[in-house]
Amino acid sequence: MLLGLEDIQLAQARISGRVHVTPVMSSTTVGDELGVRLHLKAELFQKTGSFKPRGVFNKLLSMDPVGLSRGLVSLSAGNHAAALAYGAAAVGAAATIVMPASAMPSKVAATRRYGGEVVQTEGSLLDTCLALQRERNLTLVHPFDDLAVMAGQGTVGLELLGQVPDAGMVVVPVGGGGLIAGIAAAVKLQYPAVRLVGVEPQGADAMSQSLERGAPAHLEQVETIADGLAPPFAGEHTFRHVQRFVDEIVRVTDAEIIDAVRVLIQRCKLGAEPAGAAGLAALLAGKLSPSPGSTVVCVISGGNVGLDVLKHLL
Amino acid sequence: MLLGLEDIQLAQARISGRVHVTPVMSSTTVGDELGVRLHLKAELFQKTGSFKPRGVFNKLLSMDPVGLSRGLVSLSAGNHAAALAYGAAAVGAAATIVMPASAMPSKVAATRRYGGEVVQTEGSLLDTCLALQRERNLTLVHPFDDLAVMAGQGTVGLELLGQVPDAGMVVVPVGGGGLIAGIAAAVKLQYPAVRLVGVEPQGADAMSQSLERGAPAHLEQVETIADGLAPPFAGEHTFRHVQRFVDEIVRVTDAEIIDAVRVLIQRCKLGAEPAGAAGLAALLAGKLSPSPGSTVVCVISGGNVGLDVLKHLL
Repeated sequence: MLLGLEDIQLAQARISGRVHVTPVMSSTTVGDELGVRLHLKAELFQKTGSFKPRGVFNKLLSMDPVGLSRGLVSLSAGNHAAALAYGAAAVGAAATIVMPASAMPSKVAATRRYGGEVVQTEGSLLDTCLALQRERNLTLVHPFDDLAVMAGQGTVGLELLGQVPDAGMVVVPVGGGGLIAGIAAAVKLQYPAVRLVGVEPQGADAMSQSLERGAPAHLEQVETIADGLAPPFAGEHTFRHVQRFVDEIVRVTDAEIIDAVRVLIQRCKLGAEPAGAAGLAALLAGKLSPSPGSTVVCVISGGNVGLDVLKHLL
Repeated sequence: MLLGLEDIQLAQARISGRVHVTPVMSSTTVGDELGVRLHLKAELFQKTGSFKPRGVFNKLLSMDPVGLSRGLVSLSAGNHAAALAYGAAAVGAAATIVMPASAMPSKVAATRRYGGEVVQTEGSLLDTCLALQRERNLTLVHPFDDLAVMAGQGTVGLELLGQVPDAGMVVVPVGGGGLIAGIAAAVKLQYPAVRLVGVEPQGADAMSQSLERGAPAHLEQVETIADGLAPPFAGEHTFRHVQRFVDEIVRVTDAEIIDAVRVLIQRCKLGAEPAGAAGLAALLAGKLSPSPGSTVVCVISGGNVGLDVLKHLL
């Protein structure tokens, strides 16, 4: 089952007032170097510092009250964790989030600050999450492979089309695929000619491998600096949306991501996290070929990076 | 002679389309900690990365064509330099800027990239600038002590009043005083009850000393991490505007400025330079006392900091 445009429009109405309409920044200097008109959809200014509350709010606000009152559970490297904690608090529900033992301390701290209960594990996040769900009779809010979550993330696509009506290419970072699935549906169902490109880390390329195999891939291990793009599997729903709506997925190296983090701070004054910089990384590395002079929108998906990590990247 | 509201309104009309209307970002987390509704006027997203092009464009576009065609000269630690180079190129004039030998390399490079001729000196910037002006028969565009430049900077004040109509306090970094002079005139001539506060580095407190003496002070030496706030003297015009329109000037230490730079990146995802963070530094350090729950607008005046310097601050 694929999202329809009306699912995303309904999500937009539902979450309105709960999340920011984020600004689109233009960067003449970087755009000139790339030979395009470059716009950055600044989701790092979203509540909790990433796009994730969009999907969380759409899920929670369309959930039956009984499921909500049982309490929520999920798994996340950090951004969905913070968003779920924030969203749950806003609607008066409890949230437990399973996070990797190696999660960025700043992301664990943020999740707790928003009121979430954090369970860290060295093992499989999904197994631990499903065990907690059974034991405590909680309601799962999947970080990406859920149509309501994907529809919420798709509101980024509706917004950017309004803000940059002449967009010729939209570039989106890819982790589990929730963001690109939603944006791609929102864009392609209205303007099929807009080129929709996903970018994932070379060391966590579950979606690329899924497209090659024709089915959602599970990776034995992942290795990337972009902790926000590191889920070791593509979703069933997200994969089908990528297959249907996305023109191309490219891979970037950690070095290319770090270069983009540096350019975003130096030139654009934006404090992006590595995951958030992946789209620009592909452009800077020459891995995409937008038409000269065309308008490119690059989604900067988040900005949650510890100062110690950032210091190391600069 | 003091600026009138109409001077600033005229400046706004004159520079419209040449500069960005910069966004105002709200920061709930930091605002909650301070007990206020905190808004950040994000001038770091202005063309060339600081508020300076506002004043430059108002000056150049109100100058007689003969003066413009002779070529322009100025002095600057960096942000006015880049803005003058950028503005001059936009109107087809040549610009020479005297910068300190110790200027941030990134700011010297930016000025050259925009087409400016840079002359660096270990000695007095003003003496070198005035000598060049005579020798080459150039037109001086003072970085701050010029009514047209001040009126241009005042457009920040007009904008923020429109964006945050319930502002109770406006906090502005102070170097030579051009930005606060313009903003204070724009705000106080319309809403005298809004509290207008300036913030300068403890090691470069020419404006505080000027207020104490009742006349523009010249400092023997300055010592601050905020290179953008380091001119060793207050202007004649800017001092008179501060005397008339500003409620209070407070001093912050380098450590307080660095803390604010860190908070801006970590919490607000904004890559500010030390000068740009000075206003927030005063709030975070408890040196201002906004009414609990009131609305505070803090001007983040620029974001031009080399990555090597930023790395050192984090």
